Formats: sequence, C-alpha cells, structure tokens
Amino acid sequence: MDKESNFSEWYSWIVKEAEIADIRYPIKGMPVYRPYGFKMYKNLMKYLESLLDKTGHKALWIPPFIPPKIFAKETEHLLGFEMETFKIKKESSKGVEREFIVRPTSETPLYFMASLWIDSHRDLPLKIYMTNTVYRCETKMTRPLIRGREILWNEAHTFHSSAEEAEKQMKEAWDIYENLFDELCVKDTYVIVKRPEWDKFPGAEYTTSADAIMPDGKRLQIGTVHFLGQKFSKVFNIKFKDKDGLVKYVWQTCYGVSMRLLAYVISIHGDNAGLVLPFLIAPIKIVIVPIWYNEGEKNMVLNKANEIRDKLINAFEEGSLKKYKERWLMDNLENEIIVDEREDKKPSEKYFEYELKGVPLRIEIGIRDLIEGKLTIYRRDKGEKIKVIEEELIERVGDIIEDYYNVLRNNAKMFFESRFKDADTLEDAVNYVNSGYFVRVPFCSVDKDGEECAIKLKNKYKIEVFGTNYRKEERPKGKRCIICGREAKYYVYIGKSY
Amino acid sequence: MDKESNFSEWYSWIVKEAEIADIRYPIKGMPVYRPYGFKMYKNLMKYLESLLDKTGHKALWIPPFIPPKIFAKETEHLLGFEMETFKIKKESSKGVEREFIVRPTSETPLYFMASLWIDSHRDLPLKIYMTNTVYRCETKMTRPLIRGREILWNEAHTFHSSAEEAEKQMKEAWDIYENLFDELCVKDTYVIVKRPEWDKFPGAEYTTSADAIMPDGKRLQIGTVHFLGQKFSKVFNIKFKDKDGLVKYVWQTCYGVSMRLLAYVISIHGDNAGLVLPFLIAPIKIVIVPIWYNEGEKNMVLNKANEIRDKLINAFEEGSLKKYKERWLMDNLENEIIVDEREDKKPSEKYFEYELKGVPLRIEIGIRDLIEGKLTIYRRDKGEKIKVIEEELIERVGDIIEDYYNVLRNNAKMFFESRFKDADTLEDAVNYVNSGYFVRVPFCSVDKDGEECAIKLKNKYKIEVFGTNYRKEERPKGKRCIICGREAKYYVYIGKSY
Repeated sequence: MDKESNFSEWYSWIVKEAEIADIRYPIKGMPVYRPYGFKMYKNLMKYLESLLDKTGHKALWIPPFIPPKIFAKETEHLLGFEMETFKIKKESSKGVEREFIVRPTSETPLYFMASLWIDSHRDLPLKIYMTNTVYRCETKMTRPLIRGREILWNEAHTFHSSAEEAEKQMKEAWDIYENLFDELCVKDTYVIVKRPEWDKFPGAEYTTSADAIMPDGKRLQIGTVHFLGQKFSKVFNIKFKDKDGLVKYVWQTCYGVSMRLLAYVISIHGDNAGLVLPFLIAPIKIVIVPIWYNEGEKNMVLNKANEIRDKLINAFEEGSLKKYKERWLMDNLENEIIVDEREDKKPSEKYFEYELKGVPLRIEIGIRDLIEGKLTIYRRDKGEKIKVIEEELIERVGDIIEDYYNVLRNNAKMFFESRFKDADTLEDAVNYVNSGYFVRVPFCSVDKDGEECAIKLKNKYKIEVFGTNYRKEERPKGKRCIICGREAKYYVYIGKSY
Repeated sequence: MDKESNFSEWYSWIVKEAEIADIRYPIKGMPVYRPYGFKMYKNLMKYLESLLDKTGHKALWIPPFIPPKIFAKETEHLLGFEMETFKIKKESSKGVEREFIVRPTSETPLYFMASLWIDSHRDLPLKIYMTNTVYRCETKMTRPLIRGREILWNEAHTFHSSAEEAEKQMKEAWDIYENLFDELCVKDTYVIVKRPEWDKFPGAEYTTSADAIMPDGKRLQIGTVHFLGQKFSKVFNIKFKDKDGLVKYVWQTCYGVSMRLLAYVISIHGDNAGLVLPFLIAPIKIVIVPIWYNEGEKNMVLNKANEIRDKLINAFEEGSLKKYKERWLMDNLENEIIVDEREDKKPSEKYFEYELKGVPLRIEIGIRDLIEGKLTIYRRDKGEKIKVIEEELIERVGDIIEDYYNVLRNNAKMFFESRFKDADTLEDAVNYVNSGYFVRVPFCSVDKDGEECAIKLKNKYKIEVFGTNYRKEERPKGKRCIICGREAKYYVYIGKSY
C-alpha cells in the first residue's frame, strides 16, 4: 500500500490490517479498539502516567455525566462545546425528566469539585490527571484515532497560587509531553504554536499546541496546553487563603494528549509494508521465528529458539538490557518477547505479518544458523538483515535498539523539515500549502484584529492559521500581511487541517 | 469511630476522611473517586490486569453506547437489564432521534463484534478483558464503591470451541481471582456459591460468585464467573469452523471483579483508627517521619531520614526487597516510600493521618534514635512499635512484610469463620442471620422448583438464598427444607444482602 501517493487509503488499510481499530461497530465515529491497537495506546498512556506521577500529578476519577447547571457556569466554555454534546435523558418514577451532559471535556465537573477541596495555600499546587474518555458529537468525517465521537485521552488540570507558578507549570507540561514525544521518536517534528485569539480553547486565556504534519500535509494537534488564568476559578469560586491572610482565586492550567498522538506515530513511522513501531508502544518488542523443514530439524530449532528467548528475557530482567525494561515499563516480558511456534503458517507468512504489525526486531533461526552458531536479526526500521554470532546477541541487540531510535528519529525529523516553507506572498503560500507544506507567513495580527484575514484565508482557500511560535518570538521586519497588506506584526504558521 | 457497633457510620466516615470518595458530586450514586482512593483501585486493577495478561487475555476498548437493536438481541439479558439503563438521545439534523443505551455491561456489543472476528478454531480460545465503567440506574440506596450508578470494574469474556474448555476456563478465572484475593489478604474469607436458577446472570446458563460477609453481616459479591454456554453465541451468531470441518457455535464464559472488592478489603481490614491496607494497594507503602525539636536537630534528623529512604528504595530496586517491587508492580518508588518533611504538622498529627490512611509501615526517627543508631518501626496491622538497629532495617522490614500479610490474612479468616453457622430450622436460621451470620441450611431445591420457598424467605424475613457451594457438593441427608418441609436436596447459604 503506497503511503506517499495515497495516505488516506494507506491509513484506512493499516488501521484495519494491523488490527488497530474496527470501524464496523454500528455507531458513527465510535470504532472498537482491538487488542493490538489498544495495547499500543495502553503502553503510551502508561508511560505518560508515569511521567505525571513523578512530577506530583495525581490520578482521580470523575463521572462522565455532568448536571447542566454545572456545565453552563462558564459562558465561553458552554458556547464552545454545547452544540456537540451528547445528552442523557432519564425519566424518573414521577415522570419528571432529568438531563445530563455527557462530558466533552472535564473542566466543569472537576472545577466544581476543586472548589470544595481547595481552601488554603497549603493545598496548592494541586495537580490532577485523568486517563478517561470524552464524547463529542462530531459532524465532520470521522476516522479512527484522528477524529471520533469517543476520544480516549489523558487530561491534566493544575491549580496554583500565582500566575507565575501557573505559567511555569505550562513549561513542565511541555517538558512531560516532549519527553513522551522523544520516546516515540517524534520530538521536534512539530511546531509548538500559540493559537490566535479566535482559536483558543473555550474558557482559556490562551492555548498552546504541538502541531505536527501528517504525511498528507495536514496539521494534526498532538498535544495541547492551556493557560486558564482565573477565568474558571472566578465562576467556580475556587479560592484559597494565601500566606498573607488574603483570600484569592487560584490560577489554573490544563493540558491533554489524546489517541491522536498514536495516529501520528503510526502515520509518521509507518511504511508501505505496514507499521514501524517505536519500542515503547510495540505490543511485541522481539519475535523469534524458528525455521524448520522436517521433524528432525524442528525440535533442535525450537529448542534453540526458546533458549534464545530465555537469554533475551534474562538480559531484560537482570542483564545489560535491564534499562529498557524500566524505560518501557515492561511488566510482562513473556508476552513482549515471543517465539512464534505456529505450525500452520510458513516463515514467510509470519514475516509478512510481523512487518505489517511493525514488530521492531525479528530473530530468525534455521538449522544452518544453529550449526554455525549464528542468528539473523531483522530490523523493521531499515528492513535490513544482520547475521550475528550467538554469543554476541545481547550486545548487538542493545546496539540495534539505540540505532533504531536514531533511525526513527532522523527519518521523522527529515520528513518534518522537508515539509516546511517560508512564503511572503499569498500566491506562494497557497501553492505550498496545496502541495502539502506547513508555511510560515507574515500576518497582520493574532488578536481579534486579525480574525478577518484568517476567515478570508479559510473561506477562500480552506487554509487555517495555526498560530505563532510559542517558544521563540518571530516578528517580521518590514513585511506585509499576506491577506490585507497591512504591516505584519507576526509570523504565523498556516496550512490545512483535519 | 466504632466499626463493630455501627459499621454503616464507620464506612461513611472512612470513605470521607481517608479521601477515598467524595459524595458531593451532584448526581445520585456517582461519587468522585479522589486521588488516594483511586490509587488503591488502580493498584488493584493493575495487579488483576497483569494476571489476565499472563494467562493470554487481551485488553480492548468498546464504546459505552449500544444501539438498541444490538442490546435487545438476547431476550433474558434484555429483560434483566432494560429497566436500569441510562439512555442517550440525539436529535440529528433531520430532526430524527437516535437513541443509544449506555452499557450496563458489555456482553451485547462485544459479542456483536466477536461474531465478526471469529471464523475458525484457530481463532479460539479468544480471551478478552476491559477495565472500564458501566452504568446502572440504581433505585436502591447508593454507597461509594458498594452500590452506585457508575461502576468501575474489570470484565472478561472468553470464547471456546467446546463446553469442556469453557468449563475449564471458569477454573482459570477463579484461580486468577483467588490469586488477587490472596494478595489482598482476603482469600478463603468467602464462599464461592453457585447461584440458584432464579438468581443467575441474565443470559447465563449458570452463575458462580464469591460471596463475602461485610462487618455488618451483609453479603457482598466480590467476584462473579458466569458460564454462558451457547445462549449468546446462538443469538449473536458467533460461529467457527472446527477441525472436523463442521461449523459450530462457540461456548462462552464471562467474569468480573468490580470496585466492590475494594470496598470489602477496606471494610474487612480497617479498624477504629482508619484503614489498614494490604501492601499491594497502599498508595504509600512506607512513610518515614522525622522528629525534631530545634533547628540543630532538624538537619541531622532530615538527613538521616532521607538516607534511610534511599536505603529502602535501593533495597526494593536491587536488594532483598526486590521481589516485593515486582510483586506489587511498583513503578514509582519515589511516591511509595516517602519522607514526610512537612513543618506545619506535628509528628503526632502525622501519625494520626497515616493511621487513618492505613499506611502499612511508618518509620520514626528522632535525635535519640539517631545517636543510638536505632529506628522505630510502627506496624499498622498490630499497632505495634518495634525498635530496630539501623543496620538490620532492611532485613527486619522484609520479616515484617511477611508477618503483616499473615496478620491481615488470619484476622480476615477468623472474622469470616466467626460469622458462619449451620441451622436446620427456620427459627434458628432467622435468628442467626439477624445477628449478622451467614447460615447454611437444608433447602428443597435450587431449580425453579425452589423459587417459591426463596420468595417466602425474602418477603417475610428479607433473607436471600445465595446458592450452593460451587466447589464442594454439599447434600444433606434426611433433612427437611427450612421453608416447605419437603425433603432437602441441597445445602444453601443464606443471609442478608446489600
């Protein structure tokens, strides 16, 4: 399947064939996530949760139903989400109907509770997270992991005693997310933008987002961090008594990473033969395929295969590969390093399957290897076979793991850099975007003042203004807005979006 | 708070004060699970999931909304759950309403999907699990963890090529659950019963359940395993081509453990001072409390406390306590073995808090201990302080851990055995039940034939027939049913229930 020439078809193919999701579940935008796909997601979230735990975030659980009066407290938030919520209607015995909102996100119920929990500066900072699901009644075309009516994600919410501390928290959030991105070999393959005023999260002071480029040139938001300021704390009455004895409203941030990140990782690393998985999320890290042609060979080869497997497991448990066991939070090596003993499949069929499923390393053992004391390691990243002496296996596997990280990281970065252009005129910008690029252009304003230009760009060319560089101030000198021709105060990133 | 004399009050108190759940969330039966309580639940589920993973179960994710036509396929199942479901109503742009059921359990959507996945005997056995939430519109009094409208649980579903294999799977399910119960120090503190015909899971051939006794004498179901036979596979058309070339319906089982198990563990081990947690689920396993009276002491004591903590962490990472790190699946030692350096709390206030929160071990270090090279270990199980020489700390902690397990296990078993009676007459049986006992009585029948007697027992005395011993055939000889006086074919367990 050709990823370059028809990404959309490739994506549908990989989601189905690699058993990531099954779209036959009969509700629009709500696929079933199958064991292979769901395991990748679990591995990703387990790693994210461990980073959140280590930085003092605490997990909790809030019901997915929200009483309307709580949902409606913050007006911008309400207006931003109201149209796309699902509603629960319940008739009581007295014939009265009660209605609940199915959460599209958890700010309102959580902040209602936080106002009951926070009392003093000693209760702050409070950092909370939930790995849960949210529901949005999407009208656009849905696609597994990318856009659906059920979104699996992790949302974090923090409460602080000062604006400075909340701003600092945003840095911690980005450090956590970039640690995760790095482990998935996609670090620095996105721009962290500050969204324009007209496109921020409903209820936020401002929104920052890691905007990545999918193989079809479209923008995918793989993580967002919002500065909420005191907007929610004022409506939900989240106050604390400060050290100076005064009662103040808390400062807040919230941030999230969803299954979209998994869609991105699949899409960016995958190739025409199937998935190419980073070790962290691979359900199977190493598969050993024994090759035999008769019963005599079979026993010898199977024994050797299992011996190699034990040796590998031991190296992860106690030996030189132990650091990876800890890094990848492996707690079930028996399922992650396996021997494929199936007799109803030929080795070539097994190879095809593991290619498709993106298993990082495959070790092949035939009778000749066994006699020579050698093994063949196949690397999914480079599609390369390497003969190694059995004694050197563990050491070589360690080397290959490190190199595998490098290959995935470099390929992803090269792709990102190759899809990046500057343009100073509307014509160039539109041409580049239509050829699948992210384009940086001079723009009049990212306040309300610039919205009209953004609307023109969107209506006429279906191009969106993603925002300004959040990390580095990029101000054009003596340039003109590509739309209105007024003096350009900002460089903004533009492109197509899902 | 007195657990013995007023369990109900004690339970509400512990749930609130130990920050397990917050019932102020404004939807009946849907509390918020706070970080301390939710961490216990996560630890419990992580352990259960690792057991399921090791036995070939695979996690997946199914949306919580079910189209009514799928929900209605199995008639008994529909009738069993229909009245207590929440419904989503969605108006589409064309004004047409679509309605979905919010899942009360996942048989129907999963079995719809399984019929698309299972094709050949090579696809079997298929073992699936989900750690998710289900929703039931309870009308009875709700109580955090015990009975609510949102239930957090783990449900497993298996598909087999023969009845024998499915029956064998039920044994595996009970082995897994009893491994979990054992780790929570509650093994053998329940009867595994086979429910009478009139009280089985809607759609099952038969139901087995671990029925435990809460401190108030009421039965709590802490795990259930159902034999579904071919009832669902026939309506959902889940067929496979067997080795003999014939197309057959699969045989199924399903089983679940919910947050009720956590309610039981809290209730059975807790005491008047608060929680007494098994190590597995304790969010904090060991807390070190430094004690100082002036600034000079402070530094010395804090340094020593942190040195002890590092030593403990090291012993869990690499030393003699490593087996516990693996057993408890600890992946964040920094949060699980802590030094409480807070200066705004006195040591006695800290002790009170850790008592309440059930931290298994507390180590106290004051200046005198430091000079003597000694430490004080406080065991939450026995409420006992032990002086130990610093050099022997790790070894002693290891001994205490083992003994802590024993103490919790023995106390729980003693409680269970003390609440167990045999009775041959209705009068005795009712008296015992009303005094908080589980009672074994001779009963006419557990088929439809005996239902009338069960109804009488329930209507007149609010006593329920839990079922027969699933593991051991217990047949009375020459005894009479305590209700109708006919010959008793079975011994059944009876009592009050939540």
